[in-house]
Amino acid sequence: MTVADDSVVSTHDQSATPVQTEPAVLYEAHDSGVAVVTFNRPERMNAWGNPMGTEFYRCVEAAEADPGVRVIVVTGKGRAFCAGADMGGMQALSADTAASGERTDFSALVAEKHPYFLTQLTKPVIAAINGAIAGIGLSQALMADIRFAAAGAKFTTSFARRGLVAEYGISWILPRLVGWSVAVELLLSGRTFFAEEAAELGLVTEVVAGEQLMDRVLAYAEDIARNCSPSSLAVMKHQLYADAGMGIVETSQKAEKLMHDSMQRNDFIEGITAFFEKRSPNFPPLIAQSA
Amino acid sequence: MTVADDSVVSTHDQSATPVQTEPAVLYEAHDSGVAVVTFNRPERMNAWGNPMGTEFYRCVEAAEADPGVRVIVVTGKGRAFCAGADMGGMQALSADTAASGERTDFSALVAEKHPYFLTQLTKPVIAAINGAIAGIGLSQALMADIRFAAAGAKFTTSFARRGLVAEYGISWILPRLVGWSVAVELLLSGRTFFAEEAAELGLVTEVVAGEQLMDRVLAYAEDIARNCSPSSLAVMKHQLYADAGMGIVETSQKAEKLMHDSMQRNDFIEGITAFFEKRSPNFPPLIAQSA
Amino acid sequence: MTVADDSVVSTHDQSATPVQTEPAVLYEAHDSGVAVVTFNRPERMNAWGNPMGTEFYRCVEAAEADPGVRVIVVTGKGRAFCAGADMGGMQALSADTAASGERTDFSALVAEKHPYFLTQLTKPVIAAINGAIAGIGLSQALMADIRFAAAGAKFTTSFARRGLVAEYGISWILPRLVGWSVAVELLLSGRTFFAEEAAELGLVTEVVAGEQLMDRVLAYAEDIARNCSPSSLAVMKHQLYADAGMGIVETSQKAEKLMHDSMQRNDFIEGITAFFEKRSPNFPPLIAQSA
Repeated sequence: MTVADDSVVSTHDQSATPVQTEPAVLYEAHDSGVAVVTFNRPERMNAWGNPMGTEFYRCVEAAEADPGVRVIVVTGKGRAFCAGADMGGMQALSADTAASGERTDFSALVAEKHPYFLTQLTKPVIAAINGAIAGIGLSQALMADIRFAAAGAKFTTSFARRGLVAEYGISWILPRLVGWSVAVELLLSGRTFFAEEAAELGLVTEVVAGEQLMDRVLAYAEDIARNCSPSSLAVMKHQLYADAGMGIVETSQKAEKLMHDSMQRNDFIEGITAFFEKRSPNFPPLIAQSA
Repeated sequence: MTVADDSVVSTHDQSATPVQTEPAVLYEAHDSGVAVVTFNRPERMNAWGNPMGTEFYRCVEAAEADPGVRVIVVTGKGRAFCAGADMGGMQALSADTAASGERTDFSALVAEKHPYFLTQLTKPVIAAINGAIAGIGLSQALMADIRFAAAGAKFTTSFARRGLVAEYGISWILPRLVGWSVAVELLLSGRTFFAEEAAELGLVTEVVAGEQLMDRVLAYAEDIARNCSPSSLAVMKHQLYADAGMGIVETSQKAEKLMHDSMQRNDFIEGITAFFEKRSPNFPPLIAQSA
Repeated sequence: MTVADDSVVSTHDQSATPVQTEPAVLYEAHDSGVAVVTFNRPERMNAWGNPMGTEFYRCVEAAEADPGVRVIVVTGKGRAFCAGADMGGMQALSADTAASGERTDFSALVAEKHPYFLTQLTKPVIAAINGAIAGIGLSQALMADIRFAAAGAKFTTSFARRGLVAEYGISWILPRLVGWSVAVELLLSGRTFFAEEAAELGLVTEVVAGEQLMDRVLAYAEDIARNCSPSSLAVMKHQLYADAGMGIVETSQKAEKLMHDSMQRNDFIEGITAFFEKRSPNFPPLIAQSA
């Protein structure tokens, strides 16, 4: 596994060095095929800003490129998953804007990539929502493929209460995840809700006691890494997001072609052979085959 | 607040005047920023027809135009929210049709605007479903942004059992609100269901005991009126319905531009200042700023 | 009722003849207006393959063409609804593929029609999921309009665990039925879940004890057959799937025209007359009128 920047480290252990020298994002790749990417600004509730945003996408790219990684887990250190944009930085910018009357350049706040980047990967991304999640933090977690949350974690879209809009594609993904009825209500009210309601609304797959969250998510992720074909995951992830704007007939025809392609791959032969032999399949990494 | 027609009055009190002179729709604008629009044909279960339809849209337009109004609540007087089209009028027309063999002009039954008009407003619309709701009454409530219902309120799409079709865009909005699985079942069966099931299906946000419904809905609406930026609400409402037919990348790019625009507005500065000062924001009316 | 092929019989009774001569699909048309189509390869868990696939669509076509049939119920004989593609046949093909290095012709595995064919009919299709359901069996049941399941029935998408992709339009229909949040999780994990969770996820309308499943489904289907207008069902079914790719304004305008058309049909006059007379409507078969 290659990590492009010294600022991401391969451990969850938080060292005793001063906060400023702590990497903004932690990265570790497990032998099980699961990579864990951890927001590491606990003293700021993992508020989104740079360098955290840039480092986050760099870690995700490293995981995507690493043949040993099959599933990517995203979580946060401390009490929050990500409590929204770093309002500290925004406050200064806004005061300037108000004083100068000029348009401010907010590009410094926005990472080069956007949350929907996660939907474009070939590997599944699971958000382990360990605590408070708001604004862009929520937009980011909704672009993950699967969500688990710690019991009692506090959710809010928050935008309406800050004079902001539905940011970073959340107006696209939230209604599609749970329907417009829930999405409109959560966005227009900007109200707070908790992990338990998020599960009822279908926003998260499962609520787990906080201290067991990572164990549960890692077990779930390892099951996918061990038993699911990397090429199947890559193709299906593409189908799921790309077919959102297509018709039923067109999608069915495309699926037939993709199915025939899949039947020419070794993963298919291994998949049904393992099934008949009642054993776990042994799929090679994605990079060794054409997805 | 201006009301365009004497037939809408500013009170919920039902006067003792004969039914014929009662306004078909009641309108009241509260100091809290919440306007309440009430179907007022309780003796006909608020069945849809003219002048009720025309007056309803006129009241909604008045609320939309009034800078003092931030949230619009729609409800019904008596035992029903709106029990569908006025079958009395339809019966006569149908008998004529049958007798004459001629095509009937049904334009008299249809108001100038259609239920989806509510989705085009800049202000949130909340339906307080106080009782029976069917046919066009349901189509109308589904085009509101948020729904609360009185415990035990009876719902039905009803169309299939009257020889009708999925009217007024309900074939568009119902599957998007709660998914095709629920929508197809409710439309093809035309079966009756109750507020409690509607909540489980995600069709209404909350079920409230009938006598507490308006208090609960007003408190919820007032919270939005007090704490949510009118420009945020206007932009997000537009995003939510407009992005329904767009792709994820296109939506994310549009959202980035809208976010930058929002950061140039005073609502944003007020929003984060209030957040840091741990107080409620003080957003001006929408009309005072560019949405 | 006409059945196009001797291989489909008009009874649920399984004869004592050898398995090879048993029809792969059973067909019975009830006087109530409900036709029941039953997968009949219990010894193979109703695994999908030919001739079962071809016979299934032939039976469905017979039901669609029969004026006496108003609702179509699909179920399976034995412990499974349909446990996926017939892996027996696939195993041989795959071994050939592996040995020869040539592209295999899988057309023998695929019936002439695809699962989405059910969405193109004028009549409602209800899946009575009596037991295990996986792969193409699940894709097929999701293309039915309404689903009931036996308590404890085991569900899985399974594709990811066999090196396959989201087959036969399941990447289109599953997210639309229950939202992308649930759909992505079920497809990427390929995990097993049960009827009870399927109901919570909104995937099935109701879970019924296995021995009561057919009674419950038949009663539900007979209610539609007795009380719902065949032309309404045909038009609404078309609206629901066709409007998936349309905008709200366009859909509302189309619905207005369809509503006016419906008001010219006898079903409408019968529908409201029956309503006023507080009796069941007496709608003629679809074939007797223009849908």
